[in-house]
Amino acid sequence: MNEMDENRENSIKKVVEKAQILTEALPYIRDFHNKRVVIKYGSSVMSDSEAAQSVLDDIVWLKLIGMQPIIVHSGSDEITHWLELTGKTVEFINRNRVTDKDAIEIVEMVLGKTNKQLVQNIERLGVKAVGVCGKDNSMIRAKERVIDGVKYGYLGEITQVDTTLIENLLNNDCIPVVASDGVGENFESYNLIADDVACELAKALKAEKLLFLARQDVLDGRKVRVPSAMISTQDARELIEEGRIDDDMVYKLKCSIDAAENGVHRVHIVDGTIPHSILLEFFTVFGVGTAIVKDKKELYPHEVEFR
Amino acid sequence: MNEMDENRENSIKKVVEKAQILTEALPYIRDFHNKRVVIKYGSSVMSDSEAAQSVLDDIVWLKLIGMQPIIVHSGSDEITHWLELTGKTVEFINRNRVTDKDAIEIVEMVLGKTNKQLVQNIERLGVKAVGVCGKDNSMIRAKERVIDGVKYGYLGEITQVDTTLIENLLNNDCIPVVASDGVGENFESYNLIADDVACELAKALKAEKLLFLARQDVLDGRKVRVPSAMISTQDARELIEEGRIDDDMVYKLKCSIDAAENGVHRVHIVDGTIPHSILLEFFTVFGVGTAIVKDKKELYPHEVEFR
Amino acid sequence: MNEMDENRENSIKKVVEKAQILTEALPYIRDFHNKRVVIKYGSSVMSDSEAAQSVLDDIVWLKLIGMQPIIVHSGSDEITHWLELTGKTVEFINRNRVTDKDAIEIVEMVLGKTNKQLVQNIERLGVKAVGVCGKDNSMIRAKERVIDGVKYGYLGEITQVDTTLIENLLNNDCIPVVASDGVGENFESYNLIADDVACELAKALKAEKLLFLARQDVLDGRKVRVPSAMISTQDARELIEEGRIDDDMVYKLKCSIDAAENGVHRVHIVDGTIPHSILLEFFTVFGVGTAIVKDKKELYPHEVEFR
Amino acid sequence: MNEMDENRENSIKKVVEKAQILTEALPYIRDFHNKRVVIKYGSSVMSDSEAAQSVLDDIVWLKLIGMQPIIVHSGSDEITHWLELTGKTVEFINRNRVTDKDAIEIVEMVLGKTNKQLVQNIERLGVKAVGVCGKDNSMIRAKERVIDGVKYGYLGEITQVDTTLIENLLNNDCIPVVASDGVGENFESYNLIADDVACELAKALKAEKLLFLARQDVLDGRKVRVPSAMISTQDARELIEEGRIDDDMVYKLKCSIDAAENGVHRVHIVDGTIPHSILLEFFTVFGVGTAIVKDKKELYPHEVEFR
Amino acid sequence: MNEMDENRENSIKKVVEKAQILTEALPYIRDFHNKRVVIKYGSSVMSDSEAAQSVLDDIVWLKLIGMQPIIVHSGSDEITHWLELTGKTVEFINRNRVTDKDAIEIVEMVLGKTNKQLVQNIERLGVKAVGVCGKDNSMIRAKERVIDGVKYGYLGEITQVDTTLIENLLNNDCIPVVASDGVGENFESYNLIADDVACELAKALKAEKLLFLARQDVLDGRKVRVPSAMISTQDARELIEEGRIDDDMVYKLKCSIDAAENGVHRVHIVDGTIPHSILLEFFTVFGVGTAIVKDKKELYPHEVEFR
Amino acid sequence: MNEMDENRENSIKKVVEKAQILTEALPYIRDFHNKRVVIKYGSSVMSDSEAAQSVLDDIVWLKLIGMQPIIVHSGSDEITHWLELTGKTVEFINRNRVTDKDAIEIVEMVLGKTNKQLVQNIERLGVKAVGVCGKDNSMIRAKERVIDGVKYGYLGEITQVDTTLIENLLNNDCIPVVASDGVGENFESYNLIADDVACELAKALKAEKLLFLARQDVLDGRKVRVPSAMISTQDARELIEEGRIDDDMVYKLKCSIDAAENGVHRVHIVDGTIPHSILLEFFTVFGVGTAIVKDKKELYPHEVEFR
Repeated sequence: MNEMDENRENSIKKVVEKAQILTEALPYIRDFHNKRVVIKYGSSVMSDSEAAQSVLDDIVWLKLIGMQPIIVHSGSDEITHWLELTGKTVEFINRNRVTDKDAIEIVEMVLGKTNKQLVQNIERLGVKAVGVCGKDNSMIRAKERVIDGVKYGYLGEITQVDTTLIENLLNNDCIPVVASDGVGENFESYNLIADDVACELAKALKAEKLLFLARQDVLDGRKVRVPSAMISTQDARELIEEGRIDDDMVYKLKCSIDAAENGVHRVHIVDGTIPHSILLEFFTVFGVGTAIVKDKKELYPHEVEFR
Repeated sequence: MNEMDENRENSIKKVVEKAQILTEALPYIRDFHNKRVVIKYGSSVMSDSEAAQSVLDDIVWLKLIGMQPIIVHSGSDEITHWLELTGKTVEFINRNRVTDKDAIEIVEMVLGKTNKQLVQNIERLGVKAVGVCGKDNSMIRAKERVIDGVKYGYLGEITQVDTTLIENLLNNDCIPVVASDGVGENFESYNLIADDVACELAKALKAEKLLFLARQDVLDGRKVRVPSAMISTQDARELIEEGRIDDDMVYKLKCSIDAAENGVHRVHIVDGTIPHSILLEFFTVFGVGTAIVKDKKELYPHEVEFR
Repeated sequence: MNEMDENRENSIKKVVEKAQILTEALPYIRDFHNKRVVIKYGSSVMSDSEAAQSVLDDIVWLKLIGMQPIIVHSGSDEITHWLELTGKTVEFINRNRVTDKDAIEIVEMVLGKTNKQLVQNIERLGVKAVGVCGKDNSMIRAKERVIDGVKYGYLGEITQVDTTLIENLLNNDCIPVVASDGVGENFESYNLIADDVACELAKALKAEKLLFLARQDVLDGRKVRVPSAMISTQDARELIEEGRIDDDMVYKLKCSIDAAENGVHRVHIVDGTIPHSILLEFFTVFGVGTAIVKDKKELYPHEVEFR
Repeated sequence: MNEMDENRENSIKKVVEKAQILTEALPYIRDFHNKRVVIKYGSSVMSDSEAAQSVLDDIVWLKLIGMQPIIVHSGSDEITHWLELTGKTVEFINRNRVTDKDAIEIVEMVLGKTNKQLVQNIERLGVKAVGVCGKDNSMIRAKERVIDGVKYGYLGEITQVDTTLIENLLNNDCIPVVASDGVGENFESYNLIADDVACELAKALKAEKLLFLARQDVLDGRKVRVPSAMISTQDARELIEEGRIDDDMVYKLKCSIDAAENGVHRVHIVDGTIPHSILLEFFTVFGVGTAIVKDKKELYPHEVEFR
Repeated sequence: MNEMDENRENSIKKVVEKAQILTEALPYIRDFHNKRVVIKYGSSVMSDSEAAQSVLDDIVWLKLIGMQPIIVHSGSDEITHWLELTGKTVEFINRNRVTDKDAIEIVEMVLGKTNKQLVQNIERLGVKAVGVCGKDNSMIRAKERVIDGVKYGYLGEITQVDTTLIENLLNNDCIPVVASDGVGENFESYNLIADDVACELAKALKAEKLLFLARQDVLDGRKVRVPSAMISTQDARELIEEGRIDDDMVYKLKCSIDAAENGVHRVHIVDGTIPHSILLEFFTVFGVGTAIVKDKKELYPHEVEFR
Repeated sequence: MNEMDENRENSIKKVVEKAQILTEALPYIRDFHNKRVVIKYGSSVMSDSEAAQSVLDDIVWLKLIGMQPIIVHSGSDEITHWLELTGKTVEFINRNRVTDKDAIEIVEMVLGKTNKQLVQNIERLGVKAVGVCGKDNSMIRAKERVIDGVKYGYLGEITQVDTTLIENLLNNDCIPVVASDGVGENFESYNLIADDVACELAKALKAEKLLFLARQDVLDGRKVRVPSAMISTQDARELIEEGRIDDDMVYKLKCSIDAAENGVHRVHIVDGTIPHSILLEFFTVFGVGTAIVKDKKELYPHEVEFR
């Protein structure tokens, strides 16, 4: 074998390995075909531009291989920035932003800008995206959030979800990008917690998957990854009760339990800063995050041989 | 005739007059059935809350009687307000805002907020509305505006319009509310002049009517209303050449000529501060504004007997 | 303010009032959108040409603003005329015409002519109309009417209604005009009471409204209008039992009770000789006729603030 | 072979012959599948009740095997009867009835009655039928007929045909039964010659076949049947010029030439009093009537072997 | 009457008789419109080329008059031929072919060839046909047949039927021709008994009729035809228990009982060698075969007057 | 960093590389979305079971990521085997099999078996497949092949292609598997060269790509791969004229030129024995085979940066 042939051999061998990896994804692609996945795209991920790009790449990939991603986003970090820039005070009670008349105006501005930036960044990757919010078509109805007697002003709780607009966009081959606000009884604006919006949309859309992109995995108190990649909602309840998980994660876990017990087949919490964490979580055997399911026995066909 | 009967007579007489007015609108309603009308909703009207409400009432009326309104809006007055609030400078050259990186961010925020407020206010009136912008579905493609060698940064010119998303929303019985921005070749944001957006959308959507809501009529130099309610595009050209019309109106007239000569049946410029000016312009014989047509002989059937 | 301006002011003020009246109809139009209304167009109204024209104007208006009117008509006055002209005898028992072989032939001729005249008169107003009868598509099945042992020959009672043809015409944007006859078991013709046809069609079509155009209101014995514009079916039963209402109105009230208690949201009986009585009844707060409902608490949204 | 077996043999032999006849129709059925055929059902046939029944049987058969029959009828004989009964005078000029205000009223009544009777008689045979006239949906527009300066009043000439309603009925699996009248510019009624209506509908519907049911064949002067069952439009012109054919037939031949030269594949004139003349004309090799074609070489596939 | 006229008379008389026979089929055609009929086309019929042609003629006739035939075929006689030709042994246990690896390959080859030949022969008659088998779309799932402990190798039993593909072909106006095989759990091939396939397809397709073409009628032991043309499933059970019917017919009767008691309206067993036996069975009063029904009282409308 | 963390790091690093490879395929997937690709699956590949499996894996992958593959196959190697097994002689003239009556029967049997085996093997991979041939729906019409006066019997040439059935299957989300035969004027069978069938189907289906799986690349006479991976049809003509390419490849190149110059965007010839050669050819920059295009400048968007 002369050098030229040898080079060719090597080059072919390398691409064959690539092809091998593509075909390994086949059973996953088959199982997820036409399935809906609601992705909560957290502001912490958005602010890390490399992670943000990797996440959008992954979402576009999901779309192109036949899944139906729906993105839900908040604007929290930027909201604080703009509130400060315009000289407003920022008050949090129990991690919930108290939202007054001035604040809600800033919220709307930031949500509007962020929403369309996401659309732009997806369109740039060559698939169709449309940005909407809970006010469009009065899709998300809300009321004031009141916890333990504390009123949170224009920070709301979801009372009703109408998926008509989202279904319409999905049918027209678009990725819906949803800003997390809603309208009240008198059509006033409410800022909403994006985790709530993602959870309620996933339930209403009968999504196959709900995915939370966070800065970290579900950790126990020793900052060690939860050993089992897949936990039941029962396990999740116990983790919460143990009290060693941080508050943000507790909130996500509670949403996960709600979704998993109300029709969403599997909820995932992954660290959005790992490159391609969505693909890794969905398309590899053990994933890179935590999966919450109602019943650990309900495996996808492609998992049967592994677990 | 006793008093009771007399009262009843009078009361009936009064409502019969009302009914008479409703039926007088019949031929207009018939001629406009299923027709599309693009309405440029100027920031000057938006800032007058009574006018704003009256305009939305009228638009909802158009929708309910079977027309297909599409709203285009800018955010100009508010943009200036927020630029100043956040300490940016505002530069205008020939009435066009030079838009730098900071400014475009504010533009996007204001457009986003304004867009969804309009949606909210229409939804409140009981019809469906969805807010979109030129970036959604990359609906409006743009490039930098350059006039006489002056570069306007992120203030753009429209290069292409794709109406798929708007058609989709119309088919789903929604009023599309369109914020006036667009995306460039590399999917960067461009602020657009709302008059341009309205004009290009009207042409692309083959709209029956394009309507500009302004603060005043087309005036000649003596601030007297243009005597003829309907002028040809040729007349409009002459009005511009006479040089007695103010710049904003010249811009609108140029858009009107463009639209009227490219498939839009009739363009209207009306003073949005007159209560119910849209209804008055569309549903009364002589209207309250200026109508621009390619050919003054192409009347609607209901006009034949009057003009 | 010079005279010219003053004139303009006044003229604008007048049209603004008109616009005000148009917009007042908005909440009604919204509530009635896409709703079906079956209108019994009585021969007494038809014979008053001014009233007839006003009624058709109103029906066309309903159609244009998005309702789905269905017209049911009889031919009774003309039937008598033609029976006499061709030398047949006319026998009524308890207000029901005994219909023999000769009579049914005349009935069919008059119904046919009247039906197509209505179509013509609606088409003249610029909307689509198609005239059908109970025999088309064997839409209305009937059998001989027998009351207290009296046989009424070819005067029938409805046994079954198939709305396929009507639905088809509605879907094709036509106003169906229905002549009140039907076919028996052996496909023989039956003359039907138009009130019955209207009532059964309204029930089968799940109509929002059933409207009887009569020569007079529901009167009590003193010929004073029933004080309350809206009565429950229970009220209606009591009115009948009081025995002071004339026979024709009793029949209509019974049909109204039947319809209101079988899925029709509201039944109206109005004096068709009042100009635009349909618009007045539907689009003003107190109406000009009598409305019969199953439950007086089931108001339309636009009524909530008034009643 | 015992008697029982022999009987069975004979009985089977007989039904096998029947089956043979059914299968002989196969190539015709295949060629005519989904094809439209407009049938002019003349009043002369209608008045012969046995012939009328046989004709309807045949039409229902056409429908059931997959053709799309459209029936056009007049009311002429009955019209005369009713005009006389009600004391009107009947004036014919050149075989065309001069139709005044009184006459047109009678025409409408008779057409209405006849139309629905046909519907009834078809429905009795188990297929769907809907009766319409030229006024429905303003399907047939007409103007006064003027020949050689003679004005025929409300006897009209067709100016325009809109097939929307007929197409709609065909799509809903109904046999349209069309009464031969129309509406003028001001929506006034016009009586029309049914041959004209059939001809114009056939052209507008791009019918495969147009069939005239008459009392007799196309005869030459010696009352002998035209020897060739199929003639070209050129032959037909010559027959007319020879002047030995009676006026009614000349009119039909002219309509036939018009239709055959304007898109109708084959026009048939058959004697409607021969039992099952439609089936015989369509489903046997030589037919029982006269077929007029533009080009005698354009045979149906099933004919190729025979002609 | 001269000779020429007399000849014409006679010739017309003869064709009128033909037309009479065509119209006699009318009520049957009406009752069977759009109904599905699954036809088991046995190899014994296929091998008699005249019978085969007559059967296909009849099936095409059913299609053209509006029924939806589905053909199921085996390949049994030819399979034996090819097994022998290629030197394989043929083992039958209780009339069931034991099918090993070699045999199943031959089975597939013969089925494939036969299937497409049938398609070809139907297409030649001018209607659309598509040949499929149980493997297409994994339409028929099967497992190994085991009776009394005897394993039949690749001769299978049906476990599941998915009619999607058949429905799709019917909607596209094709006659589906189905070869009788299926796929196992691991997608291995199974030869199936065509009677089973026909029976299961008829049940799954909610067919109106299931028809077995056999070489002979259901006979009693004296080789006399079962006297009653229509028997109930109860009668059929008794016939089987009497034990005088041959095995092949017992199998068909069992399938018939299964089908008739699971949603198929009527099952027919006819002697396929009688010319046009399908038409004779379906379109004549007493038929030529045996009809099995769940309840002898459920007659078709066209039968009511006869039975 | 302790060992546990290090292991996790490494493991994550490895899967991230995998994810990287998946995302590299993104631009290809986007460009090929919904595009049709006709794949000629040669008998040489089929007979190598590992290659066959790898090819089917790749085709299923194409399907799952949104392409529309259509498979065309022959049965040539097996045909020879079965002809010999059954004692027939095999005659080839110029590489074309002369096909007599006996041979065509064997051809049909082998094609039938092969066709359904492919279906089975695709279904096993979890996507829908339906096997058809040129006779189904008379999809491929053919006539006897005659070259230089030599008649090839039942080896045919394609005269016409009707894609209705294939479009129907594609719309129903199936992979059509097409056996290469056809029907003649009298519906007799013709064996066809699969390269021809693939070429004509690709043209008729307006396929984006046509792919020939062969045992080797397009080689020049020195058995070295054609240096440029992409050649124009002009280049291909020159390669043929040089005369150093073997006959089979010449035939394929001629088909490629025909397809590329008649609407197929790109034709690929790849060595089917390289594992995953389809994926490698489609999803890597330089591919592993030869691409033939009409114009080398018409690149896919994802190629622009590389070539």
